[in-house]
Order: sequence, then C-alpha cells, then structure tokens
Amino acid sequence: MKKVVAGIDIGGTFTKLGIVDQEGRVYTETSISTVTHKDIDSYMEQLATAVRKLLKDQQGKLELAGIGIGAPNGNYYRGVIEYAPNLNWKGMIPFVEMFKTHFDIPIVLTNDANAAALGEMMYGGARNMTDFIVITLGTGLGSGIVVNGNVVYGHDGFAGEMGHVTVVENGRQCGCGKKGCLETYVSATGIVRTAFELMALRTDDSQLRSIPFEKLSAKDISDAANRADRIAMKAFDMTGKTLGKTLADVVALFSPEAIFLFGGLSNAGDHIFKPVKAYMEKNLLSIFRDKVKILPSGLTETNAAVLGSAGLIWKEILG
Amino acid sequence: MKKVVAGIDIGGTFTKLGIVDQEGRVYTETSISTVTHKDIDSYMEQLATAVRKLLKDQQGKLELAGIGIGAPNGNYYRGVIEYAPNLNWKGMIPFVEMFKTHFDIPIVLTNDANAAALGEMMYGGARNMTDFIVITLGTGLGSGIVVNGNVVYGHDGFAGEMGHVTVVENGRQCGCGKKGCLETYVSATGIVRTAFELMALRTDDSQLRSIPFEKLSAKDISDAANRADRIAMKAFDMTGKTLGKTLADVVALFSPEAIFLFGGLSNAGDHIFKPVKAYMEKNLLSIFRDKVKILPSGLTETNAAVLGSAGLIWKEILG
Repeated sequence: MKKVVAGIDIGGTFTKLGIVDQEGRVYTETSISTVTHKDIDSYMEQLATAVRKLLKDQQGKLELAGIGIGAPNGNYYRGVIEYAPNLNWKGMIPFVEMFKTHFDIPIVLTNDANAAALGEMMYGGARNMTDFIVITLGTGLGSGIVVNGNVVYGHDGFAGEMGHVTVVENGRQCGCGKKGCLETYVSATGIVRTAFELMALRTDDSQLRSIPFEKLSAKDISDAANRADRIAMKAFDMTGKTLGKTLADVVALFSPEAIFLFGGLSNAGDHIFKPVKAYMEKNLLSIFRDKVKILPSGLTETNAAVLGSAGLIWKEILG
Repeated sequence: MKKVVAGIDIGGTFTKLGIVDQEGRVYTETSISTVTHKDIDSYMEQLATAVRKLLKDQQGKLELAGIGIGAPNGNYYRGVIEYAPNLNWKGMIPFVEMFKTHFDIPIVLTNDANAAALGEMMYGGARNMTDFIVITLGTGLGSGIVVNGNVVYGHDGFAGEMGHVTVVENGRQCGCGKKGCLETYVSATGIVRTAFELMALRTDDSQLRSIPFEKLSAKDISDAANRADRIAMKAFDMTGKTLGKTLADVVALFSPEAIFLFGGLSNAGDHIFKPVKAYMEKNLLSIFRDKVKILPSGLTETNAAVLGSAGLIWKEILG
C-alpha cells in the first residue's frame, strides 16, 4: 500500500485537510468549519471523521503513516495550541495528545508559518536550500525560519515571531499588547492602517477615500495601486520600506539564501516586492549586498497550507 | 598519546594560542604579536613555530589532532579571513589553506564571537544548552548564535552580525559604512560616545568631564558609576536600554534559553546586567517573559578565546 500522510491546516474560520504522498502529490482535499465549534471535542470528532472519509474515498489503496498539523500558536515541542487569540478554544489545548485518541500514528503540530516553511522546503521554491525564511503576510505577519535544513523552534518552541519585532517605538497598538510591532505595519491590516494614515496626512484624490475603514481591504489598495492611485502606491512603498529595513537586520542575524513572501499581501506583486527588495538592499551590511533573494512562494496558495503540514510530518517520519 | 588541539585567537594586536584537551584543560599558552607583521607569510611562519614550541615543551606526550582558529571576519565555510578592518592583511586571506602547508591536520576557522559561543557550549555556562546566544562586548559588538546545538553560520558563513542591526535611523556613524548600528551604542566605544553625548546634554558634575574623548575608556565610566557619578550611571542605563530592547526582538526570532554577555563592558556587572534585563523584559512578547536568562560568561576571560577556538575544532573532530 502506498504510504501517505494527512496535512491539516487549522485557521480561525476553516480547517483545510488533504492526503499527501512523499512527493507532495495531493490525492484529495476537503475543509471543515473551525469557527462553528465552540467545543474542542466536537471539533476533533468532526476532523477525525473527515480524515477517515478522505482515506476511504481512495478505496483502501493508501496507508496513513502520520498526521501533520499547522495551527496558530501551535507549539512543536509540546504538541499544544497555546492561547491562540483567533480560536474559540481558550488556554492550552493539548491537541496532539487528544488527537492520538483518534489516530494511533505519529502526529506533529507546529504553527502555520513554520508549516509554510516546511512546505516550501519539501515541495516549493526552497527545495535545494538549507537556510531561508518564509514570511506569511495575512491578517498578521508570521515567519518560519530555516537554519541548516531545520526549522528554528528555539528553546521553548516559539521562535520565529518576526511579526512582533518592534519597528516603531510607541507605535501602533498591536493585538499582542505591545506597541509598534512589525505586523501592525506589514500585513493586510497593517497596510489598511497605513492607507488611512496617509489619507489623513495628504490631500491627494483617491478612490480609497470613499471606503470606510471596516470595509477597506489590502486587495482594494492593491487594485488602486494598479490604477496608479497615489495614496495606494505610497502605502505599498511605506509597507515595503518597513519590511525591507527589518529584513536587512534579519539578514545580518541569519544570512539566509532567500526570503519568501507568501499569502495575501504578496499577491500585490511588484507593488510590494520592489520596495521590499530596494529598502532591504539599501540597509544591508555590505557583505550581504546583492546576495539575498526576495522570492514569491513556489507553492500555489490553494494547497500550500496542506502541503506545509504534510511536509512537517514527512520530515518527522523520514528523519 | 593524549590527543589535544591548538586553539588560536587572532586579535588585532595580539594572537593568543594554547594547547587544549577534550575536557577543556589548557596545558600551555602563549601569545605572539599580530600587529607587527605587515606580511601574512611571516606571521604564519611565526604562528606555526609557536604552536610547535608549545607542543615540544610537553615532551612528546601530546598528539596534535587539529587546530581551531577564531579571527575577525573569519568565514567558517571558506576558511578565509575576509576584509577584516582591524588586521594588516587586506582583502581575502585563505588562512586555512595557507596554514595547511604548516600542519596537515584538520584546521577550522570562524569569527571570534562564534568561537566564544562554542567555548561557552563546550566548557562554560552553556554546557547543557542547545539554544543560546553569546554577545561579545569589546571595541565592537559580536554575536555567536547557537540553534539546536549548532552555531548559526547561515548561507554564506556570515550570520550572527548582531552588531550591525540598525537601532537608530540615521544614527551614529559606524565603521561598516552604515549609520545607527547597535555596536555604535553598545560596546566599549559606544558607551564612551554615549557619555560624551550626555555631558553635552546635561549639566551634572562629573569626573568624566576632565577626561578627553581619546582617553576615556569604558572602565573609566564603570569606575565612575561605582562612585555614583550620574553621567556614568545614565550612560550605563542608556546602553542597557538599547541592548535590552534589541534583545527583546532577538528573543522573538530565536527563543533562546539564555543570553551570555562577554568581554570588556560585561565586567561592569550590575551596571550593565540590570538595565539589559529590565528593558528586555519590558519589551518582550508576553510568551517569553521571565523565561530568558541574561548571564555572565562561564569562562574566565584570560583563556576564553583560546578555549573557544579549541571548542570549534573539537566539535568538528567529535562530530
């Protein structure tokens, strides 16, 4: 029987899952609701049923060798989802231990950005790299850092929190309780805040002025930038500047071969890639100049999360 | 015969070398001048002679199994000293290749901060740690970062340049060509610059006001702080604040178990340790609070550099 794994990506709203072989072929995929389950037990029941159904649809030709899970605040060492602000289940959820009552096979958990990095390394643009960084630009900013072919988990499993590096002293309020964190400037919500700041500061005409804060999306700003809207273009430039300068510091610490930008905001293409690259280069120590690539993910966004979680468990199984 | 290695620390002025066994016992040590050799060949000749003499003094009871070298801008991957600003030999010096004509045994090179980290891990305060950081506070600021039991060299061997993280936009001119680098604020020379800034800003009496810039040392400022000199105390507070805030960001990326402060400035004890710890804690993401130790080196400074270089080559030999 062909060995496969289940890759599971737990998001605040939906959970995606798929059956993946060692080569990264996704046999079948589905999703279930995360947000409607107030109770972790009922959620896990439905998740286990969904995994079994995916396998059953393949008519017994596949053997499930392990399960990889990416989740917000997922702790690799402990297998616990710890105080995830965007999930209904509060406190410490010993996810791996609990899920083992449904499947007695290797189960590994990490956070979504680390899973994205593993997906990139096993099936995406980092296939021949040992030192690289993946930055996920969604509602927040996540980072998965790979050194010497391994994800950096650190002493307690929580390394890679680049979104909470301070970039402006006493800057924007962050959901984490601190002020001026990178993700309050560089993320889908960060660029919306920047656009509003710019509309207050400047007098340029802009179609963005007709959209209320709650409705404005990063996609709106990207569309406006495509029409050469000056507020939108400036918002991308400022976002790219903040990220580029931070990456210059990050390069000095890690000396990666490449940095991948992934998710929401990275779909704006040159609007974001160009300023990130330019401001990073401008702020780099000379020994790193013109060496570090800024790349889009080599995975398609539709199944990247599932592939990342699958990569996590394959790496564990293959050692 | 007992197997030993030679640990060599190349500094701008002196080169220290010693014979060290696997347990970190230093059998014998000496030093030669670095700065008087304008020519790399004559320097290397003298260094090789010094290593042979150290061994000979032990009357044939020791077998030399390898040589570890710590040097400014030493590149681990290439075995090359690359454009070291404080050495006489300019450009790229293929040190390992050249030294192999003197000794046909394993020879490994890295920079001084990475060597310090390896010394800490093998013989010092990090003996049971897999994730920690060593910060060397000398004329500049160096960092050796250990993740998962291995020094982070990065893609091209130059990771760990924490001294050149930007902490003040358009801040103090750094020797690297950039402005506002951490080491222009946090180092023996950085605190002197801070003391002068404070003497200009404030009106407090201070014995430091009688010392010209070229003469003032970090030790003078530390001595003045011991006498409750307000300029000196404030200089330490500001230095600790800048380092503590930077470390909060570094912790978010690496999640280390401990951070060791080593060299010159760290000898000021509480004057520097207290503010570093306090400002780091204040700026940490909540999941890291009260978890990360700030520690003095577990090695005595007299032979720490030699032990670090010895640790480098022992790690290579032992695998």
